[in-house]
Amino acid sequence: MSKGDLDPKNWDSFRAEAHKMLDKSIDKMKSVNEGRVWSPVPNTLRDKFKANLPINESNPNEIISDILPYGVGNTHPRFFGWVHGAGTPSGIISDIASASMNVNAGGRDHVGPVVEKQVLKWCLEIMGMPKDGSGLIVSGTSIATIIAMKVARDQKIKNSRKKGIIQGQLVGYTSEQSHSCIKQAFDVLGLGTEALRVVPCNDNFEIDLDSLKKLISKDREMGFTPLCVVGTAGAVNMGAIDDLEGIASIAKSENLWFHVDGAFGAAGLLGKLAHDRLSGISQADSLAFDFHKWFQVNYEAGCVLFKDNMTHRASFSDRAEYLRGSERGLAGGDFWAVDYGPELSRGFRALKVWAHLKEHGVEALGNSIDRNIRLAQYLEKRVKNEDLLVSLAPTPLNINCFRFVPNLNLDDAKLDALNEEIVILIQERGIAVPSTTKINNQLAIRINITNHRTQESDLDILVQAILDIGQELTKNKTL
Amino acid sequence: MSKGDLDPKNWDSFRAEAHKMLDKSIDKMKSVNEGRVWSPVPNTLRDKFKANLPINESNPNEIISDILPYGVGNTHPRFFGWVHGAGTPSGIISDIASASMNVNAGGRDHVGPVVEKQVLKWCLEIMGMPKDGSGLIVSGTSIATIIAMKVARDQKIKNSRKKGIIQGQLVGYTSEQSHSCIKQAFDVLGLGTEALRVVPCNDNFEIDLDSLKKLISKDREMGFTPLCVVGTAGAVNMGAIDDLEGIASIAKSENLWFHVDGAFGAAGLLGKLAHDRLSGISQADSLAFDFHKWFQVNYEAGCVLFKDNMTHRASFSDRAEYLRGSERGLAGGDFWAVDYGPELSRGFRALKVWAHLKEHGVEALGNSIDRNIRLAQYLEKRVKNEDLLVSLAPTPLNINCFRFVPNLNLDDAKLDALNEEIVILIQERGIAVPSTTKINNQLAIRINITNHRTQESDLDILVQAILDIGQELTKNKTL
Repeated sequence: MSKGDLDPKNWDSFRAEAHKMLDKSIDKMKSVNEGRVWSPVPNTLRDKFKANLPINESNPNEIISDILPYGVGNTHPRFFGWVHGAGTPSGIISDIASASMNVNAGGRDHVGPVVEKQVLKWCLEIMGMPKDGSGLIVSGTSIATIIAMKVARDQKIKNSRKKGIIQGQLVGYTSEQSHSCIKQAFDVLGLGTEALRVVPCNDNFEIDLDSLKKLISKDREMGFTPLCVVGTAGAVNMGAIDDLEGIASIAKSENLWFHVDGAFGAAGLLGKLAHDRLSGISQADSLAFDFHKWFQVNYEAGCVLFKDNMTHRASFSDRAEYLRGSERGLAGGDFWAVDYGPELSRGFRALKVWAHLKEHGVEALGNSIDRNIRLAQYLEKRVKNEDLLVSLAPTPLNINCFRFVPNLNLDDAKLDALNEEIVILIQERGIAVPSTTKINNQLAIRINITNHRTQESDLDILVQAILDIGQELTKNKTL
Repeated sequence: MSKGDLDPKNWDSFRAEAHKMLDKSIDKMKSVNEGRVWSPVPNTLRDKFKANLPINESNPNEIISDILPYGVGNTHPRFFGWVHGAGTPSGIISDIASASMNVNAGGRDHVGPVVEKQVLKWCLEIMGMPKDGSGLIVSGTSIATIIAMKVARDQKIKNSRKKGIIQGQLVGYTSEQSHSCIKQAFDVLGLGTEALRVVPCNDNFEIDLDSLKKLISKDREMGFTPLCVVGTAGAVNMGAIDDLEGIASIAKSENLWFHVDGAFGAAGLLGKLAHDRLSGISQADSLAFDFHKWFQVNYEAGCVLFKDNMTHRASFSDRAEYLRGSERGLAGGDFWAVDYGPELSRGFRALKVWAHLKEHGVEALGNSIDRNIRLAQYLEKRVKNEDLLVSLAPTPLNINCFRFVPNLNLDDAKLDALNEEIVILIQERGIAVPSTTKINNQLAIRINITNHRTQESDLDILVQAILDIGQELTKNKTL
């Protein structure tokens, strides 16, 4: 029996405590539809964390039980904020197994790479990318994008890994609706955010291809080296999908790297409703997406995929002597994650992704996504039918942007403040969690539906709350 | 009751399956001292993963149970490979809670930041860094180092985030024993690996301060801009601790950023035996270290700490409109991780670290580390007393490097091959897991002790196995 000095002193009572926490956790997950969506952390609970550095041992499990209701709220069917996945209860089973194995999946020959390679193979198939492509499971799209842009940088500039890069040489292109993680990747990689040209959008918030071509041509004239075009499959503000085939064609003729940010939207390939508009992903040199969003895998897990294995590997492989592989033994194995990304120590994220795909199958995952898209269409109709709600953007996917506009002569600043207050009160009252964004400089109530638990009735409750609170606030003379 | 289409169809049988997996996982952890250290994945198990993309649902739990014995082996007391923590069984309890909460800890106002801020506060105290410093929990030292070096880069070069950097301008310094993640950070950040000057070591494998000063001075003469010095607290090959006070003093007088790579070694501040040699960490501008190594938190969790909060924040903060914070509601909160690092979506790693520190207290964690250092000293004596074993490096901390040298006239190439084969056979026979490295161009058997379960008897078994297999191989005429 294990006898390390940090092992349980009494295995029976440890086992009992673990089963108790599991039951509490399952109870929480089972009743996730009930009660408030989000609750602020009570001061009494905050105080339990204000403690001096623990010198001696003490049992943390009671406090852990106390925190269960004070997460973000994204497991609740009326959580519509940002783009959070809802996760699934069964993820807990693979996490239990992972915790007991305590695997470092950075390399070597064990079951970790076996599982990860299989997940990557399935993902290449889901995304329509080449079978002999490569990839890596990462924490999420932010890191995936840094990896993808680094590979793009290094395949373009010989010796960039050794010599660094020349200031202002490389430039990239993405639409004004693209996610901030693209800009961040340019910052991290030393290219500078100004090297990422912001391409205007058409009325559907999709990248304008003519503007893209003009910008590329102008940059070439000015002596810059165009590096890449980043297309968006599901823009974070309102869900727009760029014309990916159109971008692919320009990237090909201009000899540019074609990256797709499919953070949540790429998962739409699992379903039928958005499938055709996403099929251009198959032509990408690289793709970043998250499992913890529309795939509904628990936090955190994302993925980066590449068309070409060797190009991917060439940007990261460089093992130190103490990490040299062997033909046999534990230092063997044909897939060392450290050759494909920046993390040397890595948890066993692959297991929960594999188990999730295996348990549900892609058909059920696709149906769940299509149901979300239909719910967004339902909400779009509900907004159109309400005199006091004004739509601010189309609903191409699963996100609605609209706002409450009372029959009063309010300027934009007042409407912004009113709608922001509506959102905060709906959150504070625990009714639902919408978030806000700006669409054409107007503050919008933003309803993102990436939750397999959401029903039409949840959207009805939301709409009613917006109308009620909007009217309540407009009666208030402080406006 | 939850009714999303990915929720369990039958909660009672789901609950039973989760408890069953928990019992199997606890059984595995309880018997971790028994049996083989590492076993290759059997082909029958590999075959279970060679499946087509799952279209329909199926239960993954039987296969998950099957993989439990085929991890890396780092939970076993005779795992001495690389620098892997052994973890603790109780980590499973916080992982169960985390999985049920499915928190995205990238920002907003919920219990995630409350726990993370407390962990960071405790870590600043453990490391002797300023109370008003800052930090972030990350996946591990590799990402922590990229974050730290980016902050160093951006505080030195005005507008580097926007404009990128000038090729060949910035240079940094670290010893020839430092970890490859420093070089990788220079690669990722666009500085280029050649900008990282490799400083020779003294006979104790510590950075040579005179050489450091000369290199800085030479670079200044050549027109380069010295940026940073990276000190190592626990070199990966054999555990050397650089003269951190000496580096701090040079960094101060030369106006350089002082970063410490304390991946595993910084944890030595919890104990008594290495404490004084590590106290120079308190003067670092930034520190990277792992919880999943000598702290014994389960994979994966690392940390980056900074002396100055504003400098840290200035290198990452730049929120998009849809992420704008509020005074109230869920978009409130005073610690958004996205302002301090590259990840926007993040799991709730903070919980397991908090629970671990709370459960064990720093005294027990320190004792466990000191016990490992004493075990390395015990092994050093055992090696000295064996005629056929030759030590290749001193043992300043918890790592022994030595090799089997039979009474034969073998050249270095043959001795390298012999010792590599010894290590592989010990792994393949399941006796123990040593790894190898090169010390002064000679292949060493490398014994790293970062495992709270290791006993003197485990080292005796290891030494005997090396001697037995070494002699067995030298009788073999193929040598």
